[in-house]
Amino acid sequence: LTQVAGATSAGAVLQLVRSGVTTRSDLARRTGMARSTVSQRVDALIRLGLVVETGDGPSTGGRPPTHLAFNPDGGVVVAADFGITHCRLAVANRLGELLAVHAGELDIGVGPAAAVDWAMEQVAELMERIDRPLSSIDAVGVGLPGPVEFAAGRVVNPPIMPGWDGVGVPPLFAAHLPDAAVLVDNDVNMMALGEYWHRWRSTVDDMLFVKIGTGIGCGIIARGSILHGAQGAAGDLGHVQIPDALDALCTCGNRGCVEAVAGGGAVSAALRAHGRDVHDARDVVALAIAGDAEALNALRTSGRLLGEVLAGAVNFFNPSVIVLGGDLADGHEQLIAGVREFVYRRSTALATRNLQIVHNRLGADAGVVGCAASALGAVLSAEAVDSRLARAEGTRGATA
Amino acid sequence: LTQVAGATSAGAVLQLVRSGVTTRSDLARRTGMARSTVSQRVDALIRLGLVVETGDGPSTGGRPPTHLAFNPDGGVVVAADFGITHCRLAVANRLGELLAVHAGELDIGVGPAAAVDWAMEQVAELMERIDRPLSSIDAVGVGLPGPVEFAAGRVVNPPIMPGWDGVGVPPLFAAHLPDAAVLVDNDVNMMALGEYWHRWRSTVDDMLFVKIGTGIGCGIIARGSILHGAQGAAGDLGHVQIPDALDALCTCGNRGCVEAVAGGGAVSAALRAHGRDVHDARDVVALAIAGDAEALNALRTSGRLLGEVLAGAVNFFNPSVIVLGGDLADGHEQLIAGVREFVYRRSTALATRNLQIVHNRLGADAGVVGCAASALGAVLSAEAVDSRLARAEGTRGATA
Repeated sequence: LTQVAGATSAGAVLQLVRSGVTTRSDLARRTGMARSTVSQRVDALIRLGLVVETGDGPSTGGRPPTHLAFNPDGGVVVAADFGITHCRLAVANRLGELLAVHAGELDIGVGPAAAVDWAMEQVAELMERIDRPLSSIDAVGVGLPGPVEFAAGRVVNPPIMPGWDGVGVPPLFAAHLPDAAVLVDNDVNMMALGEYWHRWRSTVDDMLFVKIGTGIGCGIIARGSILHGAQGAAGDLGHVQIPDALDALCTCGNRGCVEAVAGGGAVSAALRAHGRDVHDARDVVALAIAGDAEALNALRTSGRLLGEVLAGAVNFFNPSVIVLGGDLADGHEQLIAGVREFVYRRSTALATRNLQIVHNRLGADAGVVGCAASALGAVLSAEAVDSRLARAEGTRGATA
Repeated sequence: LTQVAGATSAGAVLQLVRSGVTTRSDLARRTGMARSTVSQRVDALIRLGLVVETGDGPSTGGRPPTHLAFNPDGGVVVAADFGITHCRLAVANRLGELLAVHAGELDIGVGPAAAVDWAMEQVAELMERIDRPLSSIDAVGVGLPGPVEFAAGRVVNPPIMPGWDGVGVPPLFAAHLPDAAVLVDNDVNMMALGEYWHRWRSTVDDMLFVKIGTGIGCGIIARGSILHGAQGAAGDLGHVQIPDALDALCTCGNRGCVEAVAGGGAVSAALRAHGRDVHDARDVVALAIAGDAEALNALRTSGRLLGEVLAGAVNFFNPSVIVLGGDLADGHEQLIAGVREFVYRRSTALATRNLQIVHNRLGADAGVVGCAASALGAVLSAEAVDSRLARAEGTRGATA
């Protein structure tokens, strides 16, 4: 029987119930706690609506045990994934399943207040559609197309978000939803979390998600959660210098950045120079699917160049999985083939022993699933539950 | 008043006492828990010898409160830092202060059993010197000069440790110290942890420690603890390819690795080609200190080349601090100047905004301090304490 470290708090007991320990006596065995203590913890979780009793299980002689289950419908979370020209909104249950989704056009340049007001109008419609009151929203996860100081939920030095610099986002949502926690992160980090939550979280600790669109971005999952770094800037792969890009001038002002030769903007420009009528990454992939040799070669080359940078990232970070997404990576095998070619040749034997390099699964929903997962962390983590119980206890103490 | 999330367990209460919350009523205020619950937690910590009462504080009217303190002397931890040809051993108290140190010559090629037996002989002498019984050793931290699968404490594919491949180290120490936890990690990771523990842990979450000796290694501190990666291989910077090393053949078989041009072995060889009588990194630094222009230039160039790789690592990981150590970096400013020159020029503005690049502080003791810190984690973390209490509760239940 495995002892579970730290399984003394109600929050830790909730994690055990979510992982499939469903009777009070099994909980007592797993935690080493007295049966009475376990019952106190379970009662607290039932009071919070996080756990429900689901009737009796099979009897093994004597009174059959009452089974416990995580309650996926006690409350919902909202996901708001903002892009430069669009916004995707969703409502999810406590399992992270999307109950309703709305995708609309929104210019991020309208500024924070107008953008949040617009988003909350759509949220109100979504909640009406699933027939739940706004008060059942426990938390909101927000993705933004720029650097975010995660702890404060504040936008920092965004290159393409006029009016957002230095703005703290949580208060804007709190004006509409005073009781909801608000988690804000960079959009690529949210996509990384979405893919991780959807497919990898039960088997993998360390993952990279690389988005190759007009530019190149990356979200890092380290030990099961997003790695933000000191300024929330972790995951910037696009401006790493590579030998094969030395002459290319990047939008950042440096020469030699991988984005300046392998990003969708650079690849489209190169194909236009060959007389092809392409405007963006999607056009490049469409041309490749149609069998254009220059386009196929351009995608393969982009993958190889990206592979040069990822080879270093694999040595440095030693992930189990690299997930590729974004318009230039989706819909065709050429780019990922180029990445694999270079990474498996250049990274160390130990770091590539079990490394998987795969396409994303969620496509356009990756961001909202990640926003929902981030919001759920603020509702369901052991720390969140214990903190909520401590506050409730303190309030009862104060009013008694 | 700040609510402390998860501060419901005895282990969490210990962390509060260690951070300076020293009365039962302050603990109750900080956690929101009932005074009686706080007293139960404190009693458990006193029973375990982790907390002591230190007498009355200043009275504010009524009975003066009894103050609590973390007990640094309840037990000790052992640190064993193995190199290729030497081993450094230490005993530390629960604050990580070294009480006794022994440095000796030991060929790692004698194999695991003989190496651990030798180390335990020295440990017995150290314990005698500080007049403590072997039974007061709560945990052992072990550093090894090769890749280690951290969770299992097993050596994996070491290039220079004959007889160690696949060996799990904890049972070898457990034969001597059956009740002690044993934590095993790569030696550079242990040095990184030592520097972090000593100087940075209270102010910084994300740090890189780079060791430039014959080769180049790196330990990553992410969110306050060592990042191991999927195969325990994280931190391998030496075999990242850089534009300025394309022709150089590395010991790993690839061309273009930074270690092949910037490591101590490469720099010594280059200086010998210029007629200088140098054998290793220490000789190079000695020559630079003596004012040899070729040696000064070689150190500066090594720093610039290393800076090319670190510029990418800074973009990717966004650390607050880079600490440099190892024979080629110590004792002179030329190498670190080259690193700074390149990193501040090449990394993004956001990632370098508050980045510090500094020399190490602990020198030869970095490894043992890291081993001690690692061992202390297994004794003092909230999870470790709660797990020990749960086991004790279970045992009492079983014997009652």
